[in-house]
Amino acid sequence: ARQKILLLPGDGIGPEIMEQAVRIIDWLKAERGFDVDLSEDLVGGASLAKHDVPIRDEVIAKAKAADAVLFGSVGDPAWKDVPFDRRPEVAILRLRKELNLYANLRPAKLFDPLLSASALKPDVVRGLDLMIVRETVGGVYFGEPRGIETLPDGTKRGVNTEVYTTAEIERVARVAFDLARLRSGRVCSVEKGNVMESGLLWREVVTDLHKREYSDVTLTHMLADNCAMQLVRDPRQFDVMVTGNLFGDLLSDLASMLTGSLGMLPSATLGTPEGSDRQAALYEPIHGSAPDIAGKGIANPLAQILSLAMMLRYSLDRGADSELIEQAVSNVLASGLRTADIAAAGESRVSTAEMGEAVLKELQKL
Amino acid sequence: ARQKILLLPGDGIGPEIMEQAVRIIDWLKAERGFDVDLSEDLVGGASLAKHDVPIRDEVIAKAKAADAVLFGSVGDPAWKDVPFDRRPEVAILRLRKELNLYANLRPAKLFDPLLSASALKPDVVRGLDLMIVRETVGGVYFGEPRGIETLPDGTKRGVNTEVYTTAEIERVARVAFDLARLRSGRVCSVEKGNVMESGLLWREVVTDLHKREYSDVTLTHMLADNCAMQLVRDPRQFDVMVTGNLFGDLLSDLASMLTGSLGMLPSATLGTPEGSDRQAALYEPIHGSAPDIAGKGIANPLAQILSLAMMLRYSLDRGADSELIEQAVSNVLASGLRTADIAAAGESRVSTAEMGEAVLKELQKL
Ligand SMILES: CC(C)[C@H](C(=O)O)[C@@H](O)C(=O)O
Ligand SMILES: CC(C)[C@H](C(=O)O)[C@@H](O)C(=O)O
Repeated sequence: ARQKILLLPGDGIGPEIMEQAVRIIDWLKAERGFDVDLSEDLVGGASLAKHDVPIRDEVIAKAKAADAVLFGSVGDPAWKDVPFDRRPEVAILRLRKELNLYANLRPAKLFDPLLSASALKPDVVRGLDLMIVRETVGGVYFGEPRGIETLPDGTKRGVNTEVYTTAEIERVARVAFDLARLRSGRVCSVEKGNVMESGLLWREVVTDLHKREYSDVTLTHMLADNCAMQLVRDPRQFDVMVTGNLFGDLLSDLASMLTGSLGMLPSATLGTPEGSDRQAALYEPIHGSAPDIAGKGIANPLAQILSLAMMLRYSLDRGADSELIEQAVSNVLASGLRTADIAAAGESRVSTAEMGEAVLKELQKL
Repeated sequence: ARQKILLLPGDGIGPEIMEQAVRIIDWLKAERGFDVDLSEDLVGGASLAKHDVPIRDEVIAKAKAADAVLFGSVGDPAWKDVPFDRRPEVAILRLRKELNLYANLRPAKLFDPLLSASALKPDVVRGLDLMIVRETVGGVYFGEPRGIETLPDGTKRGVNTEVYTTAEIERVARVAFDLARLRSGRVCSVEKGNVMESGLLWREVVTDLHKREYSDVTLTHMLADNCAMQLVRDPRQFDVMVTGNLFGDLLSDLASMLTGSLGMLPSATLGTPEGSDRQAALYEPIHGSAPDIAGKGIANPLAQILSLAMMLRYSLDRGADSELIEQAVSNVLASGLRTADIAAAGESRVSTAEMGEAVLKELQKL
């Protein structure tokens, strides 16, 4: 059967970097027999501009029907004054929730030729390769009640609710334990159980599951504040980490910045939509929409291209194509090509399109 | 009038490092006419061991009556199986809440002779000197409802509530703006208003207050995930930062680790108890109770000693004594003395008591 991919470039630098990933898809179609049904739609600021909503129901339906979604980025601050439920970010939040994409896999891997781009000392980060599994459909992102109410004296009160259930914690912890078995066999679970009951439950549930089904894996626990410190002090102590939505948001951004090459890092978000027995998946760069450089043609397309590579392997059963792409990216980096975000002071910089072109040329050689 | 200080060493390394601060106090009494009424009590694990509660009501009352509290640390994991409302951490949480200590000032300052102890490249952190103002009596730490409930099927559900009101946000933002006027005139406010309504309100309230009363200060806003990244990428872009309880917990620990010398950093938590017109204040090291090294006599006492110095300046109007202590600490560091936490590989290490002794000797020379 023809495989279906939905492309959602979004706003900010999303469309520019997606364009380079599409060039790679076109090449795979022409040269590698990639039989794919590609469709594209608007989300985030781009959808707000045309349809007045951050994502249309029909786009959600298309995403559900696809084998995988390749997502760019959303967050254009041009829309910062729209009502809260119409901001660009709602696009990705609704996709995660409605496709039940509960496990966000965020690798922080250092690319050797980019070692000098990190703010950390080479000895602290050399060879860094950790994986954060972040819960993405629960926690304070979605808990009710939520909102802003006006008090009798005219001042306001903002409320959000952090909720986690046994089932929500277990299913994401399973993903982490399974991954650990394929990697180093170590999981560090992160919460703030010394202050929050939801974190206390998190720790209990992970501990129980470990005892019942994963005692071959080494499990440790860490408080989130300590974890933020340990990631800076000695990030290589970690392999797989698992944590809730909000801590995962901060800690995975922190972890990816340690590599010095945020513009290089892909991510996968996996789950199973209600009433479906098929895995759904969304692939997106770890970086955001970078509005400050949007439209300038200087964004790094490699995180988007590597997100495509992840998709080929994990959702489309095209591991060989995935490896080709990763090899091409690695060669391009080794040859010294740099976009602005990964260039050292004084190093010359290529454009988004030139970087995409270079990967394509490498693919043709491989 | 005689000034009243309450000492609360706590558990873990707390008692060991407090002992060194007390030696300094004794010297101030003997040599500098420091007329102080010193009392001491148990909190955290130490109080649990003796009184079966993390803090007694009479200790809260004593703290309210004191001019300032010098706190050590709490968090001994020996008590990890006590009920949630009896864990050691309740001691510090109740003190903050009942004394209404809403503004936690957490400096991240790099000590030049310790530059090499940071995991970051010298060029990224040299001269780092930022101040995080963290809200400490609101947010998800204290919001209701909270707890763990058992669902009909026997599984559980953990809930916490993040709440911020206009008044709570305004008063802590004022502290940040006032501080900025004494420093660089810049404040960065941090929240997650693209996902949480409480963060959206935070941004609104800080923006309004700035417009009304502090337009001479430069105000910027940053999302918490981006902030975690920016603190690693280029921490010197920040001067004063202001944020909620939970983000402040993670970000201030992260920021202090950038300095490579967590064991050196003091903090102050300020507020005004309900029904009082007098400022209350608690001073404590930024580091925790470090149970892994407790009782070994190797903890760094300098954060506790510098917390005393902060107290002398900000609560006891003894600025000259405060400067003496800071000078003594600075001389001791310059002379090359290092506890284990700040020693480079191969450097010789002194004990907690030796470090305290060295500061005392310097004081005698000054
Ligand atoms: C865009 C935003 C809603 C999102 C989040 O907070 O989850 C982003 O920061 C991420 O990490 O994917
Ligand atoms: C001990 C703990 C409750 C506390 C907190 O989370 O506030 C500590 O981490 C801190 O930052 O002072």
